[in-house]
Amino acid sequence: MILLALTILDSGVPFSMLCAVVGLIFAFLLIAVILRSPSGNERMREISAAVQEGAKAYLKRQVVTISVIAVIIFLLLFFFKDHPTAIGFVIGAFCSLAAGYIGMRIAVLANVRTTQAASHARTAALRMAFNGGAVTGLLVVGLALLAVAIFYTVAGRIVGHNMAIRSLVGLALGGSLISVFARLGGGIYTKAADVGADLVGKIESGLEEDDPRNPAVIADNVGDNVGDCAGMAADVFETYAVSLIGAMLVGILTLATQPAAIVYPFVLGGISVLGAICGVLYVNLARGKPASVLMGAVATSAIISAILFWPATHRLFPNGVVITNYYTSTRYQPVQKIARASETGHATNIIAGLAAGQHATALPVGFIGIAILLSFHFAGLYGIAIAVMSMLSMAGIIISLDAFGPITDNAGGIAVMSHLPKETRGITDDLDAVGNTMKAVTKGYAIASAGLAALVLFGSYVEELRAHLTSSHKLATGQFFQFSLQDPKVIIGLFIGGLLPFIFTAFSMDAVGKAAGAVVREVRRQLQAKPGILRGEDKPEYGTCVDIVTKAALREMIIPALLPLVVVVAVAVIPQLGPVVLGGVLVGTIVTGLFIAIAMTSGGAAWDNAKKFIEEGNYGGKGSFAHAAAVTGDTVGDPYKDTAGPAINPMIKVVNIVAILIIPIFF
Amino acid sequence: MILLALTILDSGVPFSMLCAVVGLIFAFLLIAVILRSPSGNERMREISAAVQEGAKAYLKRQVVTISVIAVIIFLLLFFFKDHPTAIGFVIGAFCSLAAGYIGMRIAVLANVRTTQAASHARTAALRMAFNGGAVTGLLVVGLALLAVAIFYTVAGRIVGHNMAIRSLVGLALGGSLISVFARLGGGIYTKAADVGADLVGKIESGLEEDDPRNPAVIADNVGDNVGDCAGMAADVFETYAVSLIGAMLVGILTLATQPAAIVYPFVLGGISVLGAICGVLYVNLARGKPASVLMGAVATSAIISAILFWPATHRLFPNGVVITNYYTSTRYQPVQKIARASETGHATNIIAGLAAGQHATALPVGFIGIAILLSFHFAGLYGIAIAVMSMLSMAGIIISLDAFGPITDNAGGIAVMSHLPKETRGITDDLDAVGNTMKAVTKGYAIASAGLAALVLFGSYVEELRAHLTSSHKLATGQFFQFSLQDPKVIIGLFIGGLLPFIFTAFSMDAVGKAAGAVVREVRRQLQAKPGILRGEDKPEYGTCVDIVTKAALREMIIPALLPLVVVVAVAVIPQLGPVVLGGVLVGTIVTGLFIAIAMTSGGAAWDNAKKFIEEGNYGGKGSFAHAAAVTGDTVGDPYKDTAGPAINPMIKVVNIVAILIIPIFF
Repeated sequence: MILLALTILDSGVPFSMLCAVVGLIFAFLLIAVILRSPSGNERMREISAAVQEGAKAYLKRQVVTISVIAVIIFLLLFFFKDHPTAIGFVIGAFCSLAAGYIGMRIAVLANVRTTQAASHARTAALRMAFNGGAVTGLLVVGLALLAVAIFYTVAGRIVGHNMAIRSLVGLALGGSLISVFARLGGGIYTKAADVGADLVGKIESGLEEDDPRNPAVIADNVGDNVGDCAGMAADVFETYAVSLIGAMLVGILTLATQPAAIVYPFVLGGISVLGAICGVLYVNLARGKPASVLMGAVATSAIISAILFWPATHRLFPNGVVITNYYTSTRYQPVQKIARASETGHATNIIAGLAAGQHATALPVGFIGIAILLSFHFAGLYGIAIAVMSMLSMAGIIISLDAFGPITDNAGGIAVMSHLPKETRGITDDLDAVGNTMKAVTKGYAIASAGLAALVLFGSYVEELRAHLTSSHKLATGQFFQFSLQDPKVIIGLFIGGLLPFIFTAFSMDAVGKAAGAVVREVRRQLQAKPGILRGEDKPEYGTCVDIVTKAALREMIIPALLPLVVVVAVAVIPQLGPVVLGGVLVGTIVTGLFIAIAMTSGGAAWDNAKKFIEEGNYGGKGSFAHAAAVTGDTVGDPYKDTAGPAINPMIKVVNIVAILIIPIFF
Repeated sequence: MILLALTILDSGVPFSMLCAVVGLIFAFLLIAVILRSPSGNERMREISAAVQEGAKAYLKRQVVTISVIAVIIFLLLFFFKDHPTAIGFVIGAFCSLAAGYIGMRIAVLANVRTTQAASHARTAALRMAFNGGAVTGLLVVGLALLAVAIFYTVAGRIVGHNMAIRSLVGLALGGSLISVFARLGGGIYTKAADVGADLVGKIESGLEEDDPRNPAVIADNVGDNVGDCAGMAADVFETYAVSLIGAMLVGILTLATQPAAIVYPFVLGGISVLGAICGVLYVNLARGKPASVLMGAVATSAIISAILFWPATHRLFPNGVVITNYYTSTRYQPVQKIARASETGHATNIIAGLAAGQHATALPVGFIGIAILLSFHFAGLYGIAIAVMSMLSMAGIIISLDAFGPITDNAGGIAVMSHLPKETRGITDDLDAVGNTMKAVTKGYAIASAGLAALVLFGSYVEELRAHLTSSHKLATGQFFQFSLQDPKVIIGLFIGGLLPFIFTAFSMDAVGKAAGAVVREVRRQLQAKPGILRGEDKPEYGTCVDIVTKAALREMIIPALLPLVVVVAVAVIPQLGPVVLGGVLVGTIVTGLFIAIAMTSGGAAWDNAKKFIEEGNYGGKGSFAHAAAVTGDTVGDPYKDTAGPAINPMIKVVNIVAILIIPIFF
């Protein structure tokens, strides 16, 4: 059936380019719509400008830091690997950085306009925030699809299609590596600022969220933009590009006689753009509860994908949504359990949240298991790759939803800081709660697709290794490693790989804890030096907080981001370990990485929403003992769900991609 | 070299029996020494009796609950497996329960006498607490060694030695399964009471630890006995018996032509008793800081083992000690980092503790990896089994140390409740801090040995499966599964297995959270109904708290304890899954289980000691903001280190043992 479908897809690459261009045009139309909307009063524009300035300054310094590392890796690839791969790496890295920058720019345009819209009507605010997210989504996806398609076409003419696909692994590495940095740097920034602001503001001084008297408030809002918007956009680019490339790679390695197997992923990628456009149109036409409208957009997109394409698509995706929704939505048991546990103190809240996150791993992992079993049954490793891609046919709309959250969050901040009426903040708060659940859903989606993509990459590693060892006559034809669980080298690899996500997230959380501690000390210093700040008579120095977090985030992201790279190379170089252990490492990282990522993102979202549930007036409401405990839980959840958890997604792929790239160098 | 050693060990089984008997006699001598010591004033004896009564009542109800499940499993084994295995199961279960009961009885004898000794001299208190622990250690180890040796000898005469070893797997299951229940039930009890007492006592009402005005104080002390003493003793029995049996099993499966391979583990087991006795003598003769004296005992035991036996022994073990010590001792960076993070609030304390636990996984896992690589290199799978056993040659002394902690903890409680002078409490507090580090060390030891033992069991699973499928002609000779990472069934198995520890610990933590919440509500109710309690005018109803926790612990332990059993059988029964997926499940459980167990036990101990570090006067000392945050961290760490974390150890083994047992039934 699949092969039948494949044969009619000869013009897939041009089709995908067309879709990408349509998506980009649609994104520019949305930008025009957004820009035409009113951007609020002077105070609002002033705040927005301050946030924008801080974000730009941070991103600029982040680009400089990352560029140093990127240039080193480019040179290594250029001299020790081959030129097309090195060029692919540069393209991937550049697009990933660009995606982050675009995401941040759009968010800053959309957030202040969402605030303005919220002072009139809920629906208008929803549409504005969603459209802002959709611009990011469509631009990033369009860019990724176009970059891969053009590189494949051009490089294919010059060095042949087989070589072109192998060089695309360089593009994937560029995207993934930058994405790890962007996720970590942005994630540390946003959560250090958020946690720092919350600890000293909410808990010690009794200030509300986004109170302009809090010296860390601008840093907090900058953080939303550089973490949730820029970091997320880079991540999205990476997820999309790597899945596409992984599918092509498996296609050429296992179905070399079927050229259509290369084209098929492009077609699915194109579909995702069209599906997203339909979803965007749905949100702009439908009315109703925000959550229903957004879920309607997902359904619309799923139906379009399903009609246009693979019947499995809609079966694969909505389940994932429902599960994450259960564990993180305020309407269901887990969140309410955490809220109830808050009544008995900080510690019971934490215990309940940790447990909820771990519970949430069961169903998604089960779902991934079933997806593997089914798709492998139909078409082997390539089947898994297509499962990834068919999840990606939903990517356009998912990404739009993901970018929606931080925009509403920021819009709420601007509303408070501009002293707008309470109703405005009420609307943005509602949208923010929906955004939180959407964020958990989309992160679940991202990690599930990352898990599958990584398995595809592991398959590619094995096939590349086989091809390399056979062609270099290091192994006789037909002879090859079994990667058997009975081989202690595989077990050791599983342990080393399994360790990576634990250490990686430990470093990330440490980084947030350290940077947040610095913010707390600075805020306390300011409040003590100028007691007038709390009375609203003195103006806090926002700049010092922004500066402290910027430096801390950039300093702290280096070690964890380089960790996977270093470990993979070390395993390859140490003669007692070598290729079999490395195979175990790849799978070990996928297994524990998947669990930790789901546990962290779900747990974090559940804590967050438990706090919101209490703030709605349950268990004593705001200011109660339970609320203080819930704020603690939310604060612990912050680095879980916005720094450590989502950064695992690109990290898993970096591990697998680096392994593929170094095969001819070390083995 | 090893084979040479093996040939001179013909009389190994009688030698081990002799050692076991010597150990038991020595234990009874220690009991006599303990009983001869003064048991304090009337108030102390009264409190001790109340605690003892609560603990006995709980254990009795626990035995009833567990017996129902044990009888069902016995019947299943009796009718669907074979009679010797079923009888082995009963012996294992009975010994495990007996071990728990012994552990509890000794602890209650030793704790009040330790308090009494502490009112005179530190050294006397140290010796009393340690001797109490040593009695448990020697009795449990002696019992395990004797049970296995006698069963092997008797059953060997009746059904032959091969069959006897296979039936010993039933004994292992009995030990492991009961141990899971005991660890969970006791762990939930102790931590629910502890967390509940802390939350409402320390944080809300400003009461000190063990203040008799706290209505949950007796429940808390009962918890120490049923969790840390009884649960731990059952666990120790299991660790020891399963490692011994696993080594024998691998010996017969892979070295069938070398009958000495079966005898060798017995010899190592015997050594562990002799080493422990020397360690006990050392503690009773040496003087100095408690930590140095106890480490000296470990060193003595290691040297004895090394001289008497395998040069690798002392190389394998002390590293593990040093690592855990680094992450959990108040003198080193991680604990001090958590203490510093407490200054900026509850949440930063939690984040730092979670990170510390995760960091702590790196070195032990690396150490296990090296152990696997080396021992496999020397003697294949049997080499790994011997590595386990050589770790076990340290077991006697380690177990004595493990039982030391809860005795000092209880002694401190009795001191406060009996209004003894502050100096007495100071001494027991010092010993308790040493006990905490020892506990983390011994738990690290237990989980490392469990990880290795489980790998041995996985190897046995593969060999049993091969033997069964070949002998039942379901596979041609020479044909067999590869358990290759390229097989999606293996990957799915890794996911399912990897999931188990996450869900298992999630349920355990939930249970503690729920039960602790019930205690908090009850204590609040009492304090509100009788305001005289806090003024010391009214007597609290200790009994209701004891009752609430007893019921909650027994109810909540069922689901998580049965989870591994159910999952393994389900994977075996579902035709789409089957033996290959099950192989993946076993390894997946080992991999994630090891990480989670280490992260939880180390993180928990680090939190605990960070609190103690602050209480020593650092960062504002007792009553400061940092102290409140540290108490929260300690409370979160409680179920981590004393319920969920240590219960993973027997759980991993239950998964592997059940898999071995059901091979002939389902495949």
